[in-house]
Amino acid sequence: MRIALDAMGSDRGPAEMVAGAALAVRAAEVHITLVGSKEQVLPALEKEGISHLVDFVPTSQVVTMSDSPIDAVRKKKDSSVVVAFELLKKGVVDAVVSPGNSGAVMAAAIKYLGRLKDISRPGIASVFPTLKGPVVVMDVGANVDCRPKHLFQFGIMASAFSRIMFGIEKPRVGLLSIGEEGGKGNALVKSSHALFQSSGLNYIGNVEGRDTFLGDVDVIVCDGFVGNVCLKLSEGLAEAILSMLKEEIGKTLKARMGYFLARQAFSNFKKRVDYAEYGGAPLLGFNGTGVICHGRSNMLAIKNALLVADELARNQVNAHILTMLENNMPVLADFEESDVPAGAA
Amino acid sequence: MRIALDAMGSDRGPAEMVAGAALAVRAAEVHITLVGSKEQVLPALEKEGISHLVDFVPTSQVVTMSDSPIDAVRKKKDSSVVVAFELLKKGVVDAVVSPGNSGAVMAAAIKYLGRLKDISRPGIASVFPTLKGPVVVMDVGANVDCRPKHLFQFGIMASAFSRIMFGIEKPRVGLLSIGEEGGKGNALVKSSHALFQSSGLNYIGNVEGRDTFLGDVDVIVCDGFVGNVCLKLSEGLAEAILSMLKEEIGKTLKARMGYFLARQAFSNFKKRVDYAEYGGAPLLGFNGTGVICHGRSNMLAIKNALLVADELARNQVNAHILTMLENNMPVLADFEESDVPAGAA
Repeated sequence: MRIALDAMGSDRGPAEMVAGAALAVRAAEVHITLVGSKEQVLPALEKEGISHLVDFVPTSQVVTMSDSPIDAVRKKKDSSVVVAFELLKKGVVDAVVSPGNSGAVMAAAIKYLGRLKDISRPGIASVFPTLKGPVVVMDVGANVDCRPKHLFQFGIMASAFSRIMFGIEKPRVGLLSIGEEGGKGNALVKSSHALFQSSGLNYIGNVEGRDTFLGDVDVIVCDGFVGNVCLKLSEGLAEAILSMLKEEIGKTLKARMGYFLARQAFSNFKKRVDYAEYGGAPLLGFNGTGVICHGRSNMLAIKNALLVADELARNQVNAHILTMLENNMPVLADFEESDVPAGAA
Repeated sequence: MRIALDAMGSDRGPAEMVAGAALAVRAAEVHITLVGSKEQVLPALEKEGISHLVDFVPTSQVVTMSDSPIDAVRKKKDSSVVVAFELLKKGVVDAVVSPGNSGAVMAAAIKYLGRLKDISRPGIASVFPTLKGPVVVMDVGANVDCRPKHLFQFGIMASAFSRIMFGIEKPRVGLLSIGEEGGKGNALVKSSHALFQSSGLNYIGNVEGRDTFLGDVDVIVCDGFVGNVCLKLSEGLAEAILSMLKEEIGKTLKARMGYFLARQAFSNFKKRVDYAEYGGAPLLGFNGTGVICHGRSNMLAIKNALLVADELARNQVNAHILTMLENNMPVLADFEESDVPAGAA
């Protein structure tokens, strides 16, 4: 598979992106096309010694985190994000990986790839670590006001992703809510419950916030507002906990010695929860494969994102999504006739 | 102040509640009325040696976690929850503390206390620990589908609480959203932003999930669905992180020795994030003061909840809320005329 990597727009700069590409081409049979500034990318490729192993497409513009997504796509035609998606549209590459402004990445995907047939709202999935295996949460920010059929399509897309990435034949799907009984939740969740129940998904019912990290569910479905709050809350809390622990440990010599002895355990733990291990958040529901990485992604995160993109493209995640959608069409069609809650926009 | 403590319905049983009451009466000048089963509470009072220091009101029924809130209040008239709120209504006590079924506690408060004048939706606030001071989050579960004016009233009520409990003269209020700019969020948040901006609250704009634990905001406002998911997600994640760390530390003798040396730091850290330190979640917006405790509250949590209830009643939290509401009436009245988002039920 050929993957375009947007080398610009990350917090760490193009050199880190190129280092990530170098890790990926050395780890797997993946063909990478770096897209970005000639002045910044070419020297980095030289330095990593991978100039002969990857392709390069020069661009002159950069989409920043503060750019409005729509303006960015409209006005910065020669930006690395836009050009990467153009390459995908033209079939020059099979997938795009970008650590840039996620709104602009979404906007470029909408413009250049378009929605997958019968998907109303493409979205972004994210992988959370748990006490057992990883869990896929969708949507984490692309769609803030949703209807039941949107949540249902998130369930289908995230299930297809879980199957390909984690080899789970029938991923257990839960609706994120505030009580385990089907009758609990807001208007959107209550109304979606029936749709999930009558579907072909392996639906296990509502799950609560605290179930997220237990590992007893493979896919958690929520609207993009709730999902994004959860994603950022989790990141913030994990950092706060480690920072508070560090502060307490720093207070006495004895505790510092203790930490020194236990440091391998801390480092194993950090690896277990490190976002970099999970390789970014897949864009699902487009005619093409894309992966959005955290703006502060390090080379390891970029490497893993490239491998995830490769896996998704190679295993045709979209074909899986289309099949699952087709199998569930009668359920969705029946549901359309019934009422949708006032609480869903 | 006189506080009724619902001694039944907690996961740990009446003896733990009585032990909490004993801690409270020995720590402060607070008058407690235990409400619950004679057979279970009286021996515990004897054992703690506080029979002469507290009052006791016998009840014959118990509301369980699986009872439907409305049925519980309607059919279990002689339950500890219902009787405690009756005592408050009659003016026999000044506040109620309950570790029971929070839906039933809300239902009893609605029935026996009623809403505070001009408050459309009473709710539940919760205190989260942060890197700096505590932050008050409201609503955490009572109101799942909200309109802007409800969020605004949560902002007022939580500000009054923050002022009384933490002595913050003008609490910084943030709207929980998925981007810091005012234009970002779901329909409800976007529409609420203008209302907060034109108000007399110390509104600092949108805050994101990751800001929750930084301590740069005193009050975070969100609907009860989002707030409840955040509360439970945070509890679940904190437990998962500690459990993963423990697992990693358990793997080698060296790490276990390290932990032994650093154990005081771990215990200080746990104390810092322990829900028990924060004394339960206040019910705000009712004609009367109530505090809901976690079902698994230990004696320390109960003691702190009793002291919080005492503080709220003594400092007349409701008078503060009413004054703030009155000061903001013109803003609310102006807003009523404009459109509310389709996304809000």
